[in-house]
Amino acid sequence: EIVAAVERAFGNGPLKGKRIIVTSGPTHEPIDPVRYIANRSSGAQGTAIAAALANLGADVEFVTGPADIPPPSGVNVVKVQSAAEMHQAVMNALPADAGVFAAAVADWRVVSASSSKIKKDNGKLPTLTFAENADILAEVSQLTDNRPPLVVGFAAETEDVIAHATAKRERKGCDWIVANDVSPETGIMGGKENAVTLISADGAEEWPRMSKTEVARRLAERIAAALAPEKG
Amino acid sequence: EIVAAVERAFGNGPLKGKRIIVTSGPTHEPIDPVRYIANRSSGAQGTAIAAALANLGADVEFVTGPADIPPPSGVNVVKVQSAAEMHQAVMNALPADAGVFAAAVADWRVVSASSSKIKKDNGKLPTLTFAENADILAEVSQLTDNRPPLVVGFAAETEDVIAHATAKRERKGCDWIVANDVSPETGIMGGKENAVTLISADGAEEWPRMSKTEVARRLAERIAAALAPEKG
Repeated sequence: EIVAAVERAFGNGPLKGKRIIVTSGPTHEPIDPVRYIANRSSGAQGTAIAAALANLGADVEFVTGPADIPPPSGVNVVKVQSAAEMHQAVMNALPADAGVFAAAVADWRVVSASSSKIKKDNGKLPTLTFAENADILAEVSQLTDNRPPLVVGFAAETEDVIAHATAKRERKGCDWIVANDVSPETGIMGGKENAVTLISADGAEEWPRMSKTEVARRLAERIAAALAPEKG
Repeated sequence: EIVAAVERAFGNGPLKGKRIIVTSGPTHEPIDPVRYIANRSSGAQGTAIAAALANLGADVEFVTGPADIPPPSGVNVVKVQSAAEMHQAVMNALPADAGVFAAAVADWRVVSASSSKIKKDNGKLPTLTFAENADILAEVSQLTDNRPPLVVGFAAETEDVIAHATAKRERKGCDWIVANDVSPETGIMGGKENAVTLISADGAEEWPRMSKTEVARRLAERIAAALAPEKG
């Protein structure tokens, strides 16, 4: 970490001059002024990735929903609430050399959202009407102009992790998928550790269970290698 | 604060020997393993009230949903996620001399909650079926056995605050309602200050805008006065 900080300070990191967008945390989709739908995400993995990329010298645009933990230092923070706001912030942040989409973005928003608190006085149950949110990962992956050379998505699955994540990579058109099993019994969601599989055109590479910080460090190094001129 | 801590240490607070249940924070109602419905509540006001009551010597049972801030010291903490869990924890904590129900409990739970992550692959929108949660405040207020001598509810409103809160007090059968306006423009939700109206059988008493800590201190003193033998 000290070496990384020194490298960053002296501008010698392998990602120096590279602009990378990282999304992180959940989004909150309002139902009314006091209620919302959210995805479980502490923001821990996305925050660690942003920090690791910054440590390697990257210029990080960190687009974060309402996470449990504060953003890392050394990145440019854009705070958002809803998926629509996150979509807008990502589009505004383009162009970039890479996009790492670690946020747990809500797939749906409530189109029947109320501007005043829904009362339950009349004993009726609420009816929520949903609409699909923009798919940030797919949209960025399929851009004809301004597509980042490396687009990394995440797949939080609870069953058939590798099959679902491999299919997701093809469907979205991204380069890599970082897949993990977020079943409650794994303790990964909200925990300090992660066990991921990196899915690329070369197949599925299972990483051992390690701290989220270490997952972030390794992923940042792989991104640096992928963006290095000799690799390109 | 030092005086209060000393009083507590020497067991001289006016609430010495009084057992008080305080609920706080939001509840999270699962949609599937990664999605949930929540109420906006930082837990700041409930946490401050629990701390203020403990400072006056009370034996506080602090039943808290997933709040943004840690529980205070000097209280017995019971952590819960859903409204059903909070209901159970409150019932388990009875009997008590007072109940202060500051939590933003979800009115509804998702009965169609899925044990695996709902996929959006097929382009269909989710259908959520709701059921009404137990009304903890009304149920405790209307107990024939074990009703705490003082039951305090909260009303977070966005319009006609006093009218809604006065009606809520009668409907629930509680003794007091602490009402506030949580419209986004007030900055109260998630903020450090609160502007409350205390509704009792005597009418509505509007308190000036002050810190949540000060609201808690004043409310704790009122509770101590109400539970004092000479007052009874």
